[in-house]
Amino acid sequence: MISAPIRSILALTAKRTAVTSAANQVRIVEVGPRDGLQNEPKLLPAATKIELINQLSETGLRTIEATSFVSAKWVPQMGDNAEVLKGIRKVTGISYPVLTPNLKGFESALEAGAEEVAVFGAASDAFSLKNVNCTAAEAIERFKPVLKAAQKHGVRVRGYVSTVVGCPYEGAVAPSAVVKVVEALYQMGCYEISLGDTIGVGTPGTMRRMLDEVTKVVPAKDLAVHCHDTYGQALSNILVSLDYGIRVVDSSVSGLGGCPYAKGASGNAATEDVVYLLHGMGLDTGVNLDKLIQVGRYICTELGRTSESKVNRAWKGPQARVK
Amino acid sequence: MISAPIRSILALTAKRTAVTSAANQVRIVEVGPRDGLQNEPKLLPAATKIELINQLSETGLRTIEATSFVSAKWVPQMGDNAEVLKGIRKVTGISYPVLTPNLKGFESALEAGAEEVAVFGAASDAFSLKNVNCTAAEAIERFKPVLKAAQKHGVRVRGYVSTVVGCPYEGAVAPSAVVKVVEALYQMGCYEISLGDTIGVGTPGTMRRMLDEVTKVVPAKDLAVHCHDTYGQALSNILVSLDYGIRVVDSSVSGLGGCPYAKGASGNAATEDVVYLLHGMGLDTGVNLDKLIQVGRYICTELGRTSESKVNRAWKGPQARVK
Repeated sequence: MISAPIRSILALTAKRTAVTSAANQVRIVEVGPRDGLQNEPKLLPAATKIELINQLSETGLRTIEATSFVSAKWVPQMGDNAEVLKGIRKVTGISYPVLTPNLKGFESALEAGAEEVAVFGAASDAFSLKNVNCTAAEAIERFKPVLKAAQKHGVRVRGYVSTVVGCPYEGAVAPSAVVKVVEALYQMGCYEISLGDTIGVGTPGTMRRMLDEVTKVVPAKDLAVHCHDTYGQALSNILVSLDYGIRVVDSSVSGLGGCPYAKGASGNAATEDVVYLLHGMGLDTGVNLDKLIQVGRYICTELGRTSESKVNRAWKGPQARVK
Repeated sequence: MISAPIRSILALTAKRTAVTSAANQVRIVEVGPRDGLQNEPKLLPAATKIELINQLSETGLRTIEATSFVSAKWVPQMGDNAEVLKGIRKVTGISYPVLTPNLKGFESALEAGAEEVAVFGAASDAFSLKNVNCTAAEAIERFKPVLKAAQKHGVRVRGYVSTVVGCPYEGAVAPSAVVKVVEALYQMGCYEISLGDTIGVGTPGTMRRMLDEVTKVVPAKDLAVHCHDTYGQALSNILVSLDYGIRVVDSSVSGLGGCPYAKGASGNAATEDVVYLLHGMGLDTGVNLDKLIQVGRYICTELGRTSESKVNRAWKGPQARVK
């Protein structure tokens, strides 16, 4: 008999045939300026980050994660958070969420003009203990004051859950552990939960096992996927998540955040490659791929690195594209 | 309404639920020593190629394309074809096909001990004219003597069809053009047809449109896919082909054949990444991934290049893998 993972991939959901035009729309959450740059060895001046975000605002993206209000002691790359958030040209219709690990971060973000924030939990206790010195469940508890304050100020809160497939310290992560954290953040009031394969070890098989469970507790319309490409599986994993009805995908322009030649380094899926995939499937992202390519080239030049996006490296202009 | 490509991806074939254990088996056709090395700028000595193939024979692979019997004037990288084919240690149960563009090549291959050969056509007339100075249909005619001679000597013949989605000269290729060439090669006696996205422009959307038509004329069990990763879509395209019941995948160890930083250069899907994908879905390839990683590192060292396989770059040993 065929094994469960492939059977599911093969028999993908005739039940999802009652679709509307919304099913054709995918929202990209561009995380390059935050998740990307925070993992780049080279520190950029605030002016360059502002220019990057302003350029991204011209590509058709609707969500651009701008920065993180964590302690500069821990993440020096984000030490200019207020300067960046205040400095960018905010375009109507585009959301510029920022990461806020605690109430102090939230208050700073609010003061700098944040209208959307994000909190983050982990599905793995080992990962949580290593990073924030408490269990996954305890970490979630700490976000309650942030959610409460956000509600008071009419600020939307997105929830990230990391290590949804695998953890660098404990290996495979059980879908039930993911469900617990996802459910807690959702019930706490996060409008959307982003499922992060932080170390990029997932495959369509392991993603499916996780999504089977998670979609039982949170509707697919309120879920996003955040796939790192460490093992080259990010696009395949995104493809599988589309089959579950998920229509929000996190990615970073030119795959910022991962060094191609450092062992174990793991950038996000490159936005250019994700957009190419989605457009090739007839899905609408609203993103102008040609403009996005130019932004990727700009920031890679600033960082002195090569783009991790294969589309960007091969791109010869929209006229050369096979539709 | 949702567009056709995504609807098909979503409603993937409940009809294929009557599956047997064969549906769990995927055969990898390792094309690194031929399609890979023929596109590498550095020429390797025959002894290194022989060592590569001998090492690949120890990984569990069942098909390893060894070399090409084309004119050394056109493809100097394969000028040592007879030496390589005669020099390798042939393991029982493993096939070592070689490329034969014409009867002269076939006779040389036969003399060197070939038990399986491959012929190749293109779906695009423009591509065919540029490469072999005749139309796609005319090119196929030229293989008839090869097929006839092969039959006489009990040699199996595999057929390649290139540019099945896009062509560097004419852009998008119509599925009907692919069907013509696939059907001609199949009826001529090729036991398996490998569908090549030569320039790696395909997406699950365009692959699906092509496979919808091709699977009407050749059963999926006699088809293979050969996806280049120029636009980062190879694994996603392979994933879609699995849904059509295709269980043979061409790939090259460490993605040989494509330079990461040359514009438009296009290596094959990396075997390590393909195997990681398939195993993660519960499919069986028979390949020992850890051994394959070591072979990829060996040949990359010989070539003085970095592996194009993300799995290879991130690999820390099987114990670190999340299943």
